Amino acid sequence: MLYRMRHVLCGLIVGLLFSVQPPVYAQSEDETTIKSIFDERLTSGEMYELLRELCKDIGPRLSGSEGAAKAVDWGKQVMEAYGFDRVFLQEVMVPHWERGEKEQVQVVNVPEGMIELRALAIGGSVGTPAEGITAEVVIVNSLDEVDALGRDKIEGKIVFYNRAFDQTVVSTGAGYGGAVDQRGGGPSKAAEYGAAAVVIRSVSSAFDDEPHTGGLRYRDGIERIPAAALGFHSADRLTEILKESPDAKLYIRMTSQWHPDARSYNVVGEIRGSEKPDEIILVGGHLDSWDVAEGAHDDGAGCVHAISVLRTFKKLGIRPKHTIRAVLFMNEENGLRGGIKYAELAKANGEKHLIALESDAGGFSPRGFGVSADDRVIDQFRSWLSLFPRNTISYINKGGGGADIGPLRRETGTPTIGFIPDSQRMFDLHHAPTDVFENVNRRELELGAASITSLIYLIDKYGLQGMAQ
Amino acid sequence: MLYRMRHVLCGLIVGLLFSVQPPVYAQSEDETTIKSIFDERLTSGEMYELLRELCKDIGPRLSGSEGAAKAVDWGKQVMEAYGFDRVFLQEVMVPHWERGEKEQVQVVNVPEGMIELRALAIGGSVGTPAEGITAEVVIVNSLDEVDALGRDKIEGKIVFYNRAFDQTVVSTGAGYGGAVDQRGGGPSKAAEYGAAAVVIRSVSSAFDDEPHTGGLRYRDGIERIPAAALGFHSADRLTEILKESPDAKLYIRMTSQWHPDARSYNVVGEIRGSEKPDEIILVGGHLDSWDVAEGAHDDGAGCVHAISVLRTFKKLGIRPKHTIRAVLFMNEENGLRGGIKYAELAKANGEKHLIALESDAGGFSPRGFGVSADDRVIDQFRSWLSLFPRNTISYINKGGGGADIGPLRRETGTPTIGFIPDSQRMFDLHHAPTDVFENVNRRELELGAASITSLIYLIDKYGLQGMAQ
Repeated sequence: MLYRMRHVLCGLIVGLLFSVQPPVYAQSEDETTIKSIFDERLTSGEMYELLRELCKDIGPRLSGSEGAAKAVDWGKQVMEAYGFDRVFLQEVMVPHWERGEKEQVQVVNVPEGMIELRALAIGGSVGTPAEGITAEVVIVNSLDEVDALGRDKIEGKIVFYNRAFDQTVVSTGAGYGGAVDQRGGGPSKAAEYGAAAVVIRSVSSAFDDEPHTGGLRYRDGIERIPAAALGFHSADRLTEILKESPDAKLYIRMTSQWHPDARSYNVVGEIRGSEKPDEIILVGGHLDSWDVAEGAHDDGAGCVHAISVLRTFKKLGIRPKHTIRAVLFMNEENGLRGGIKYAELAKANGEKHLIALESDAGGFSPRGFGVSADDRVIDQFRSWLSLFPRNTISYINKGGGGADIGPLRRETGTPTIGFIPDSQRMFDLHHAPTDVFENVNRRELELGAASITSLIYLIDKYGLQGMAQ
Repeated sequence: MLYRMRHVLCGLIVGLLFSVQPPVYAQSEDETTIKSIFDERLTSGEMYELLRELCKDIGPRLSGSEGAAKAVDWGKQVMEAYGFDRVFLQEVMVPHWERGEKEQVQVVNVPEGMIELRALAIGGSVGTPAEGITAEVVIVNSLDEVDALGRDKIEGKIVFYNRAFDQTVVSTGAGYGGAVDQRGGGPSKAAEYGAAAVVIRSVSSAFDDEPHTGGLRYRDGIERIPAAALGFHSADRLTEILKESPDAKLYIRMTSQWHPDARSYNVVGEIRGSEKPDEIILVGGHLDSWDVAEGAHDDGAGCVHAISVLRTFKKLGIRPKHTIRAVLFMNEENGLRGGIKYAELAKANGEKHLIALESDAGGFSPRGFGVSADDRVIDQFRSWLSLFPRNTISYINKGGGGADIGPLRRETGTPTIGFIPDSQRMFDLHHAPTDVFENVNRRELELGAASITSLIYLIDKYGLQGMAQ
C-alpha cells in the first residue's frame, strides 16, 4: 500500500480497507469502560512484557521441573507486586517425567547406510533399553488398522502411525482432534499386539520438520512401549524409504523416564468483591508447558491473560462486585492434577463460582468465546457482542471451556467459558520447539487480554441471566 | 493443551475450544462448491508455493527495477502455464527511483562521538550532497507544529517528525492512516520553511528497530529535500539524545536518485464467461513492491489471491458466466500508473466491469470484505455470510476497494470490494525488510484465497442485486 497526497481519499480508503470505526454517538458507560480496557492493554503492552519474562527468564516448565518451580515463584511474585488483595498457592502433587538425552531415531539397513530423522519422545513415554531398539516398521494410518493387521503383522515391529493432520478443517482444533488419537492411544494399541515401539507423524498443521511432543496414555495391563513423534519431513522421508527399501529398519534410542510425583502448586490471585465477595469469577490458564519449548502460546498466553483481568481492573480503578480470581493451573499437559485439585478444594471449602473462563488456545487475534451455560446466559453474552471492537470478538458459541476448569464444572456445575482466538497458527507451533515468545504478536496477545477482561467486566457488572444473584 | 484418553470428552472440548462446525444438514449447491473451494486451497497449498517463488526467486520488485521486470515475466508465465483463456500485458510507463548506497544517519557532536541510527530513505526522496548534510534537529509531532514554529526555528535544520503510530486503534489501517501524513507530506511542509532535510519515526506498529520506507510526495514549487525514516528504537534514541545533548546534530547521507520513466506492464489473465463474456469481474493485487523487502504481504499475497480465483475455478471445473479477470497491477507503491492505465484502457475500449475486488491488506486470516456499491448489493453480500466457514469472513462493511482499482471506479463507476484480513501484524512488517515469505502463514494465505474465490463464485452465479444483468 502506498500513501499519495494527491488522492485526498487515500486516508479514507486505507481506513476502509482495514477498519471502519463505529459511528460516532454518545457512548454508554460500558462502551467507555471497554474502550479504556482496550486502550490500556494496547498501549502499555504490559502482558507482552510479562510473557517475555515467563518465556525468556524461565522458559520450559514441565511439571516437576526446576522451570515449573521457578514459574510458580514468578507467578506469585508478579501478582503480589501488583498488589492483588490475596495471592496464595494450592499445593498439588504432580507427575514428574523427564525426556533425558536427545532422542535418536535412525533409518538403518538401507543403501545410504543410516538416515537420521528428527524426533521427540512423546511425553510420558518409557525409554528404550540402553542399546536402543532396532526393528522393521509397519506403516498404518489408524488404530483400527493395527487391529486389522493383528499380532502376526505387528509383533516385534515398530508401528508407524502416519495419518496427517486434516488441512481442510478451517478451525484447526478439530484437525488436531482428528489426528491426536495416534499419539494418545496409538502406543498401547500397538502394544496390544506385541509391537516393540511406536513412531507417529507429529500432530501438526505445519509442513516443516519440527517434531511435536504431547502426552500419551498407556492403558493399564498393557506393556508400556517407547513412542516418539517425527517431524513432517522426517515422516515423509520414512514413508518413501519404506516403499523403496523393504529391508529398512528403524533404530530408536530414548532415555526418558518417570520419577516419583513432585510437589508443586497452582498459583491463585484475587481481588475481593465489593458486594458479593463469596461469589467467584475465575479466569485461568496453565503455568506448566512441555519441556521442549517456552510454552509461549501454550499456555504462557493464557497465564498473562488471566493476570491481565485483575491487573487491568486495578489499574483502571474498576471495583468488582464479585471476587475475581486468576488461577495459574499446574500440570495441564500431563496429568491435570492442578485442575483436579482446584475443583476438590473448591468443593471441600464450599466455594461458589459464578463462572470460570480459561484461555488455552494461544495468544492470537480474538475471534469469539465458547460458553457452556444455560441458553439464557448465551443469549445474554450475545447481546453484548456489539460492545466488542470490530475484528475482535464476533461470536459466542454454545459449548466451551478448558481442560483445567473441566473438573470444576464436573464437580460443582460451574458454567465455563473458553476463549477462542484465531486458530490458524496454533498447531504449527503447539508442543514444538517453535512455541516461543518470538512467535507471539504483541497486539494480538493484548487484544486477547482486553477481550477477556471486557467479558469479565460485563459478567461482574450484570451477573448471569437467569441465575439466582 | 493436552490429550488424555480417559477424558472421553476431550476431543469434544478441543473441538469446542477452537472451532464448532456448523450443524450437519443437507448442503446446498453453494455450500458444496464453497466447501470444495476451501478444501482445494487448504490442501494443495499451491498459492503459498507461488508466493514462495515470487518472494524467493524474484524478491524485491520496485517499479522500473530488474526485479519488477522479472515479476512481470513470472506472472505471465504462471498464468499461461495454468492455461487461462487469455493472458496479456498492458504496457505502462512507470517512475523509476533507486535507493543507491546504504543510507547513513548518525547523531554527531555528542559526548559519545557518533551514534549510528537505523534508517531508510523514504521512497522518492532526493539524495543528499555527496558529503552529506549535517544540521541541528528540530523535533515535532505534526505538520501543524512546523507551521507554528515557522521559518525562524526551521530554516537550515533537520525536522524530525516523531509522532508514533496510535496503538489504541484496534484495526490498524486507521493507526497507519493517522501517522502517515508525516511521511507523505512532512518533507514538503518542512521545506516550505527552509528545512535542510527530514527524518521521521517509521510509520509502524512494531517496537523493533526496523525502518519502514514508503512513498513521499513533494509539492510542486517547493524545494525537494532529503527524507529518511528511522527505526522505532532509533527514533527513541534520538528523542532522548536531543533532551540530554542540546548541541547534538544529525548527519545524513543518501545517494538515492530518480531515473527517466521505465517501460513496464500490468499482467492480465482471464477466463472467458460462458454467458456474459463482455461483463468482467476483476480481481487484483499489485505486483510491484518496495525495494527493501520481498513484498510478501504487500502485495505478493494479493497477486496470488488474484491468480487463485482463476486457478481454483479451472481446477474445480467451475465455468463462470462472466469473464473473470486477474490483474497484477504495476506501480501501486510509487505512482499508481498501472491502475490509472488500466482504467484508461477499460474506458477507451468500452469494457464493462461488473465489479472489481482488490487484495492489498496482506495474507492474514480473513475477517471481512469492504464494499463500495449500492446498498442492495451490500445486503445481498450480507445474505451470503452464512456460507463462509466460521472464523473466516464474518462481515461486509459498507465502503471498500483498493488503490489500484480506485481509478476504474472513478472513471467508469465500477463498484469495488476490498478484502479485509486480520490487521494486527500488517504494520509491523509493511514496507520494512521484514515483509518476507517467512512471515506468511500457509493456511492464512490460502484461507484468504478461498474466501475471495468464494465471493467471486457467488457474484458470478447470482450477479449483482439491483443491477441490470
